[in-house]
Amino acid sequence: MSNSVTPQLWSGRFTEPVSERVKRYTASISFDYRLAEFDIQGSLAHANMLAHQAIISQQDLADIQRGMSEILADIHAGQFEWLLDLEDVHLNIEKALTTKVGDAGKRLHTGRSRNDQVATDIRLYLRHNIDGILQLIRAAQTALLDLAETHADTVMPGFTHLQVAQPVSFGHHLLAYFEMLKRDAERLTDCRRRVNRLPLGAAALAGTSYPIDREMVARELGFDGVCENSLDAVSDRDFAIEFTACASLIMTHFSRMSEELILWMNPRFGFIDLADRFCTGSSIMPQKKNPDVPELIRGKTGRINGHLVGLLTLMKGQPLAYNKDNQEDKEPLFDTVDTLIDTLAIVAEMLPGIRVKPEAMRNAALQGYATATDLADYLVKKGLPFRDAHEAVALAVRHAETQGCDLADLPLVSLQQFSSLIADDIYEVLSLEGSMNSRNHIGGTAPAQVRAAVARGRAQL
Amino acid sequence: MSNSVTPQLWSGRFTEPVSERVKRYTASISFDYRLAEFDIQGSLAHANMLAHQAIISQQDLADIQRGMSEILADIHAGQFEWLLDLEDVHLNIEKALTTKVGDAGKRLHTGRSRNDQVATDIRLYLRHNIDGILQLIRAAQTALLDLAETHADTVMPGFTHLQVAQPVSFGHHLLAYFEMLKRDAERLTDCRRRVNRLPLGAAALAGTSYPIDREMVARELGFDGVCENSLDAVSDRDFAIEFTACASLIMTHFSRMSEELILWMNPRFGFIDLADRFCTGSSIMPQKKNPDVPELIRGKTGRINGHLVGLLTLMKGQPLAYNKDNQEDKEPLFDTVDTLIDTLAIVAEMLPGIRVKPEAMRNAALQGYATATDLADYLVKKGLPFRDAHEAVALAVRHAETQGCDLADLPLVSLQQFSSLIADDIYEVLSLEGSMNSRNHIGGTAPAQVRAAVARGRAQL
Amino acid sequence: MSNSVTPQLWSGRFTEPVSERVKRYTASISFDYRLAEFDIQGSLAHANMLAHQAIISQQDLADIQRGMSEILADIHAGQFEWLLDLEDVHLNIEKALTTKVGDAGKRLHTGRSRNDQVATDIRLYLRHNIDGILQLIRAAQTALLDLAETHADTVMPGFTHLQVAQPVSFGHHLLAYFEMLKRDAERLTDCRRRVNRLPLGAAALAGTSYPIDREMVARELGFDGVCENSLDAVSDRDFAIEFTACASLIMTHFSRMSEELILWMNPRFGFIDLADRFCTGSSIMPQKKNPDVPELIRGKTGRINGHLVGLLTLMKGQPLAYNKDNQEDKEPLFDTVDTLIDTLAIVAEMLPGIRVKPEAMRNAALQGYATATDLADYLVKKGLPFRDAHEAVALAVRHAETQGCDLADLPLVSLQQFSSLIADDIYEVLSLEGSMNSRNHIGGTAPAQVRAAVARGRAQL
Amino acid sequence: MSNSVTPQLWSGRFTEPVSERVKRYTASISFDYRLAEFDIQGSLAHANMLAHQAIISQQDLADIQRGMSEILADIHAGQFEWLLDLEDVHLNIEKALTTKVGDAGKRLHTGRSRNDQVATDIRLYLRHNIDGILQLIRAAQTALLDLAETHADTVMPGFTHLQVAQPVSFGHHLLAYFEMLKRDAERLTDCRRRVNRLPLGAAALAGTSYPIDREMVARELGFDGVCENSLDAVSDRDFAIEFTACASLIMTHFSRMSEELILWMNPRFGFIDLADRFCTGSSIMPQKKNPDVPELIRGKTGRINGHLVGLLTLMKGQPLAYNKDNQEDKEPLFDTVDTLIDTLAIVAEMLPGIRVKPEAMRNAALQGYATATDLADYLVKKGLPFRDAHEAVALAVRHAETQGCDLADLPLVSLQQFSSLIADDIYEVLSLEGSMNSRNHIGGTAPAQVRAAVARGRAQL
Repeated sequence: MSNSVTPQLWSGRFTEPVSERVKRYTASISFDYRLAEFDIQGSLAHANMLAHQAIISQQDLADIQRGMSEILADIHAGQFEWLLDLEDVHLNIEKALTTKVGDAGKRLHTGRSRNDQVATDIRLYLRHNIDGILQLIRAAQTALLDLAETHADTVMPGFTHLQVAQPVSFGHHLLAYFEMLKRDAERLTDCRRRVNRLPLGAAALAGTSYPIDREMVARELGFDGVCENSLDAVSDRDFAIEFTACASLIMTHFSRMSEELILWMNPRFGFIDLADRFCTGSSIMPQKKNPDVPELIRGKTGRINGHLVGLLTLMKGQPLAYNKDNQEDKEPLFDTVDTLIDTLAIVAEMLPGIRVKPEAMRNAALQGYATATDLADYLVKKGLPFRDAHEAVALAVRHAETQGCDLADLPLVSLQQFSSLIADDIYEVLSLEGSMNSRNHIGGTAPAQVRAAVARGRAQL
Repeated sequence: MSNSVTPQLWSGRFTEPVSERVKRYTASISFDYRLAEFDIQGSLAHANMLAHQAIISQQDLADIQRGMSEILADIHAGQFEWLLDLEDVHLNIEKALTTKVGDAGKRLHTGRSRNDQVATDIRLYLRHNIDGILQLIRAAQTALLDLAETHADTVMPGFTHLQVAQPVSFGHHLLAYFEMLKRDAERLTDCRRRVNRLPLGAAALAGTSYPIDREMVARELGFDGVCENSLDAVSDRDFAIEFTACASLIMTHFSRMSEELILWMNPRFGFIDLADRFCTGSSIMPQKKNPDVPELIRGKTGRINGHLVGLLTLMKGQPLAYNKDNQEDKEPLFDTVDTLIDTLAIVAEMLPGIRVKPEAMRNAALQGYATATDLADYLVKKGLPFRDAHEAVALAVRHAETQGCDLADLPLVSLQQFSSLIADDIYEVLSLEGSMNSRNHIGGTAPAQVRAAVARGRAQL
Repeated sequence: MSNSVTPQLWSGRFTEPVSERVKRYTASISFDYRLAEFDIQGSLAHANMLAHQAIISQQDLADIQRGMSEILADIHAGQFEWLLDLEDVHLNIEKALTTKVGDAGKRLHTGRSRNDQVATDIRLYLRHNIDGILQLIRAAQTALLDLAETHADTVMPGFTHLQVAQPVSFGHHLLAYFEMLKRDAERLTDCRRRVNRLPLGAAALAGTSYPIDREMVARELGFDGVCENSLDAVSDRDFAIEFTACASLIMTHFSRMSEELILWMNPRFGFIDLADRFCTGSSIMPQKKNPDVPELIRGKTGRINGHLVGLLTLMKGQPLAYNKDNQEDKEPLFDTVDTLIDTLAIVAEMLPGIRVKPEAMRNAALQGYATATDLADYLVKKGLPFRDAHEAVALAVRHAETQGCDLADLPLVSLQQFSSLIADDIYEVLSLEGSMNSRNHIGGTAPAQVRAAVARGRAQL
Repeated sequence: MSNSVTPQLWSGRFTEPVSERVKRYTASISFDYRLAEFDIQGSLAHANMLAHQAIISQQDLADIQRGMSEILADIHAGQFEWLLDLEDVHLNIEKALTTKVGDAGKRLHTGRSRNDQVATDIRLYLRHNIDGILQLIRAAQTALLDLAETHADTVMPGFTHLQVAQPVSFGHHLLAYFEMLKRDAERLTDCRRRVNRLPLGAAALAGTSYPIDREMVARELGFDGVCENSLDAVSDRDFAIEFTACASLIMTHFSRMSEELILWMNPRFGFIDLADRFCTGSSIMPQKKNPDVPELIRGKTGRINGHLVGLLTLMKGQPLAYNKDNQEDKEPLFDTVDTLIDTLAIVAEMLPGIRVKPEAMRNAALQGYATATDLADYLVKKGLPFRDAHEAVALAVRHAETQGCDLADLPLVSLQQFSSLIADDIYEVLSLEGSMNSRNHIGGTAPAQVRAAVARGRAQL
């Protein structure tokens, strides 16, 4: 970032230059340079419309197009010099344009303001990234479907309260995350509609006196329509907050998945192993292999929640229209996008690197009376009201616990102490597979349902 | 809340009763009793399906229907006794049912669990309230349209950075909030689709071994479909977080409107007056008339943002499936709904109570060089590049400031010092109405546009 | 809460009564009645000073004292009627006082305002509760010391990244929480100094024209001093935010402890069992015994973090002095205090109800190469640079993993493949107790250090 | 940041290198390089102790000192090459050391781990910055005292609810912020005590088997003492969260000051002007002079609140001891420190650049019945109970409002309609200066009190 002595573009009214410290405190070029491509895209559409409406000449348009094309090339080549004195990406590019093409450059800003310009840039940036994120979500979903299909028949203990609850298919468990991501994608798609509206033409806050054609600009930039109120267009950032809230939910879902991966890799569980390339070691303990990636994902959830709070706090209580507070919208938004993209990419890469240990899962499911509910259901099907069946089984579990064995290890006569309705077909009911297969309805854990869900999932992607 | 000695419904397995302190700490009946109506609604649909599938008898169904109808009547009459010992709304109602109708009551819980039951209740509750909130948003929007229409021609100073920027129509300013609420309503409608899915049938976490028909229950309860994964169905609360994020944005929008109402009521502004019935006084200062309502709205924004953070924190890092942590979802959700409903209702009531003071607005717009941009645009239309015009006007403003007068107060010869392009048609351009009327495109502040926007708005509601 | 037709105490200036909806929206009596005792305490000190300064008569003082004593009795007896029309606790009590004692009651509000009155009440309330919370923290610390002492020699696997790291004493592990609570108590004690300043005398915002003696009131109420700026005194709530931040940290510490208790109760770990009286069961799964209390503690962390965000958002950007926004400070503060007190009390009760299973801990420590670092340190002590030793042991671990055994299970000749420095004294080094005992410095896990730490802890309480 | 092919320092146990994406996702060197100086400082103290305890030789110590001194010089010269492959600042420096001095470098890590090393680095970093921040707070406080002293007699309207309340001294108003900063400094000083404890010696989590002397290291590094539990030492970050909470309060205080500066610069108020060097203009509106600095300060409050939420979320529910989640502590902490330092520096620079406009303040105080309370107090001093006086004045205000004049503009006979106790000495009471001077007690707004408060303030700094 260079620091030249260029006077500010708005300086005629001022009697002294901006203090150096203020310049650094208020400039945004150190981060908003990332909007350059979108800024140019918006400027070209604006210039095109200005020429079409005869507000500028065709020659001016040609000059602007030529200048912008050179600037873009400079940026891509890493040869564009961003100047702190020019505050932000908009003034940096406009100044460079004027240097290259003269008066045409000075005419570009006709009928617009930085207020509607930056709002347009952010929306173009965010739309572009939402589309990329949606693709990455699909990649993660595909990885989940693949793993779930492979493990439709793998039985594991389903937990509630982290206590053994009922046997579930590992594939079924994975598909819970598929569903979460499905909703996450839906949310982003909904959010995209609100992002994809054109603020340009709102100018500073009130619109402009030039005979602009906003719909033309909207069409050229691929927007679904125009923001219908100029004050609203330049001052609200609810679309960015909505996006960040969507991001918080995605990260929350991944933090839950990460918590499970970490648990499952713990040697007490030993349900899975992560390929070495996703783990790191310890500088002191030579035996360590740490699940750094899921731990970091879990940790980065806080980062995104923090950005959400930052953005909400930022907007709170601001009078209309644009206030400088809003400059603080960019860094959290950029970091949210970056974090989300990195996390999604790494999840999609990591999932196929999971080595599942079905034996450990199965052994774990055999402890903790996972099929006690099946015994209760068995009794209900023989006529006992559910509440009475529940109580009978609770007592049977207490007895088995005293014996230090599972329900299926109790002899029939012992089980019959708790209900005379129990016959020797009970042992099939008490088996893990019997339990799992019996939950055979949409959403249930039966492997047949898992396979059906995978098929539905593939069709949806 | 009574505290009886009823044993817990799951107690057979336990060797000692729950400690009194634990009972109070873990019970949710003190707040989840509010779900009673939705709990009964869900139970009736569940029972209906159980009978249709011949899992319970028609007689059982009839008994359950009769019992529930009595319970509902008791609740409405304020005669239902909620017992802390029965933990939550589900067990309280089930126990009462069993007392009333015997074994049929004990059969109701067949094929479900409190985990899917509570998820169903919350979704029914939230769907119901989203519909109510959408109606209230429309009421607030209508009040905005009415006021905007009346004040399409009322000129006020538009601010950016709270400095005078350009003249705007007060009606136009109000419509900015109409747009925000339009997006808020869109968001809630999108959210409703994700709320409106049936978790029932997920049972504890894995589905159930009974031949249930989830689609039948979904249809009866008006859900758009079923949750397609049982683990996800009982454990995620993203729909509630999404709703709370929507609520945060609504409150953020109202906090901005409130900030403005408070400013406008300040005697330095004096742009509006709020009817006495929306204000309170001071216990010590006899002259005070305070805009308590907008201040509280602004303050309550923090409350809702806090709930959003609470819910996100709650979910972060929870392993599947249901954990008791989730019991903490209800109080913030209920309070968010209540706060939102109260705030929307009071906004809709307050807006027509605003007395607008057009003279004060107009006088304020006459200070601060609100039409300086119009002068620049005038020069551009006469051929000066925008940047050069901007600089010329900046110098003119600096001169006028030294003279202590507005641009329109400078004699023509004086204005011409800054550009020879200025002629005497400039005074029309520098007038407030000239400026306002000239911004005559969609989204612009020209009164004609305001009226068109009001018409579009009415058509949309 | 009754709703009478009493006119507001500030009503002379108003032309119409407050709307019913506004009354409900703005009234605080539904929650601030909890401040009653502190309000009366403050009023009595104020009246005492007024009489001492001859601003009111001794007779007035006597009347006020008599009236307040009756009101307090009514409140304790549950016979005080709180009226919504009287807005808040202050006006309710003042009105009741005037009803009881006439003009003396009307004189009480001389030289003060509700603004400094409520600030005083909250500080008295918070000081009182900080003292109670500090006591409860000590109780929890004592329970930790007791359990730690009993288990100074109990070996468990210490985890980093939830992977086995090194053997630690279970007592040592528990004392980590003792240290956290020690800092939490320090923080609250520091916060108390800032809470314990008298705002009374600031009146509405500027002080008062009566010859009041603020130091006298401060002394009588046990404050450390007076707030030295009236505008600051009535408008800032940083002391309440600081308290809530302290509370967030306490809950965060307990959320970590809870996460561990939940893990340790999981059957894969089986390190501890919680007494039945702290657990609940399932409505559907008869075998379940769920650690509800730690789960709820973990969940309630979000609640307090949410309150912190709510309060910070509330204050953000408020101009001086008092604004109605601040009324929203009470509910989150009250709920924070209540949640903290309940949680501390239940932790202190629950800790002695933990049944430790040393065998399970020991068995777990024997897996995962917990003493690999000890082997590296052994090599270093024999002259190898640490980094080389680390690498040698890493290869040994990889070898042992291939063999499916622990390092201590490898024969000497096999170990010597990785370094010729290894002799048969290595097996003592590789034992859990050898490892644990060797970390014998302040803060280390050696049982001797644990016992010393317990002794230091007891001396500090 | 270079990316070499150096193998990881912990790699012996691994069968495949870390994936490139994982390397980027997990590495912290892109931000933790900022800890380099503190890392070296800690390492030198550690090496010194190791030599003193004869764990390494004096020659090793000399080598390490020489190597570190070269590394520090390289870093200062911008010639140190940070490698992504070496993950973090610790391994980068250790590797460079080993390259420079051989085996001595490999011995440095004896008896410590990155877990206690990074905790030490952060504490040294934070202690250093707290000291700098405390100095900047004092600079801002001095600027406030200077301005307050100059304006002890300047009268302005004090607001509550942004309605005119009572006349206050502008100096008095400024001193409210002095008080807030005083508490902020107190809080940071308290926080510093908890930051200033040595974690080194905790090693990975359990301490070390070497005969280390932690008190010696603590003394050399200027710590107040050692962390007394190794698990706690490596895993908690409460000190960083506490610091961030302090920072949130500082920013909250400045956001309030900023809100006021922005209001006061609005032309409706016109109470102050900010020097041009603290303002920026508009790219479209030539007349604009915007208070960017206070707007950005207000906006950055959200940023810090967000970091606080991020850090709290990060810690929530982590089991002991160190987890990789904690790597996410650094970026928010660094940004909090940077933002705070920049903001404090700019506030201290900006305050003397405020031009106060006493006439505008005075004129504003003359509207809005600012001395109505004085009239009530006057009546009370003549014997009327306060509540009756309040009501009489309320009616007088209503009357004056109808007349469109202030109370002081009503003729005596007209005032006497509301109370016969009013005599012609009332006009002095109703004057702004009379009102202001009468609030002459500690904390009151009387200019004499303001000057006394300034003197006390100067003595405290």
